[in-house]
Amino acid sequence: MHIDEHSITDAVIRSFDGCDNPRLKQIMTSLVTHLHDFVRETRLTEAEWMEGIRFLTATGQKCNDTRQEFILLSDVLGVSMLTVALNQARSPGATEATVFGPFYTDDAPRLEQGADIAGDAPGEPMEVDVVVTAPDGSPIAGAQVDVWQADEEGLYDVQRATLGTRRRGRAAMKTDAEGRLRFRGVVPTAYPVPTDGPVGRMLVATGRHPWRPAHMHFMIRAEGYETLVTHLFREGDPYLDSDAVFGVRRSLVVKIPSSPKPVLSHTFVLDRLISDSA
Amino acid sequence: MHIDEHSITDAVIRSFDGCDNPRLKQIMTSLVTHLHDFVRETRLTEAEWMEGIRFLTATGQKCNDTRQEFILLSDVLGVSMLTVALNQARSPGATEATVFGPFYTDDAPRLEQGADIAGDAPGEPMEVDVVVTAPDGSPIAGAQVDVWQADEEGLYDVQRATLGTRRRGRAAMKTDAEGRLRFRGVVPTAYPVPTDGPVGRMLVATGRHPWRPAHMHFMIRAEGYETLVTHLFREGDPYLDSDAVFGVRRSLVVKIPSSPKPVLSHTFVLDRLISDSA
Repeated sequence: MHIDEHSITDAVIRSFDGCDNPRLKQIMTSLVTHLHDFVRETRLTEAEWMEGIRFLTATGQKCNDTRQEFILLSDVLGVSMLTVALNQARSPGATEATVFGPFYTDDAPRLEQGADIAGDAPGEPMEVDVVVTAPDGSPIAGAQVDVWQADEEGLYDVQRATLGTRRRGRAAMKTDAEGRLRFRGVVPTAYPVPTDGPVGRMLVATGRHPWRPAHMHFMIRAEGYETLVTHLFREGDPYLDSDAVFGVRRSLVVKIPSSPKPVLSHTFVLDRLISDSA
Repeated sequence: MHIDEHSITDAVIRSFDGCDNPRLKQIMTSLVTHLHDFVRETRLTEAEWMEGIRFLTATGQKCNDTRQEFILLSDVLGVSMLTVALNQARSPGATEATVFGPFYTDDAPRLEQGADIAGDAPGEPMEVDVVVTAPDGSPIAGAQVDVWQADEEGLYDVQRATLGTRRRGRAAMKTDAEGRLRFRGVVPTAYPVPTDGPVGRMLVATGRHPWRPAHMHFMIRAEGYETLVTHLFREGDPYLDSDAVFGVRRSLVVKIPSSPKPVLSHTFVLDRLISDSA
């Protein structure tokens, strides 16, 4: 029954002996082991522990219908991207995934080939010309392509109160018979993650900047293939080496030629579905 | 610039290079290392990650002026007790500390020697007779002793809405010239931690019970000594080996004889102040 700094970890792990969900038991055991190792390694003081309690509480209380501060915390600590990277079991040549981010909505306008998805969003017009293929290079016709992007001022539609529920800078479209999809958007620009909450204060306290390199989001779904959630990043962006959420993968950095006019071209290669995961 | 499951931990740690607070940098580096190890070791799925985000968010949102669900989470994962145990640098023979818990208030009635602190709280009356000494056994006169306890139904005053701000089962008292303090309370009984929130659901999901063995709380302060926050546990309680918050230390388990009437006796030995920590 005696608890001290050495015996306590085993005592907590033993408390899960009656757990009838083996996976949950495995996760809790690993979590407690690593959490205790962190506390022991840093010899956390009681004042620091209390600061941690306050930080986590404020993070939870910052969350609402349009703000998820715990996802942001996971993002800036690299936990989101690590989880994404671990869950990609992909064929050689398949497009790499990156973080989902907080700005996807499921009510994007359904638009046709050639559409201008920017609407009245400020920014330099950009042509987008992408192809979706299988690992063997064969085109995937009718793939569902969701696209979302910030405008020239670094804001998504959902971040502008004046727009209400009006959507711009995002669309749900489909590839044609050749697996191709062309549309117009605006040239992406770098923008900061939200910094008006506890996570922003943590970034300041640790000497970090909040910027994400310029990118456009894609989610691509097709029957028989793994859903791909990824970005295309703009080559030359000054934040490619220090993305606040650690989402940059070399294969996703794309040159956007500026003359005669900006064009973003890329081929996305979907993995064939190998499991029942969504 | 390339991030994958192997390179990401170093990338996140390097992001703290500009942190001008060495202790914060050390804590964040250790936290990220262990958090990533946990995710890699369990190969956390994206669905499990999302469940974690939801759990932490709900935990933060359960907190209010009278409820601290993150402290409860820390308690049931043994993190609170581990932190307490690490921060005790005590002389041989000094009384061991345990968790503070969520039920202390700073507005307890100031009562005199011999008082009945229970008031109208239900429970079997119990005499308490304690002495506070220095490590060399010399009595500490005028030590400030805060006591708080649950009633026979396992509830603290602050958990009973009908009491409003009225306090019972708690008091702030002082030792006499011989370092002695006598008062009356009720025999402590085991009680469950609050289970109507996310932490309660986690306990159920992991097959754990929420019970704490019967105890009385003490916080003892005296000039020139380390503040002692501890409990006395009732010998024979069925939950001594499975305290939901891992607070039991063998030296704090005390026999409460029931005849001719219940008496709780103990000698508390305070550590001399060795640092500027409170």
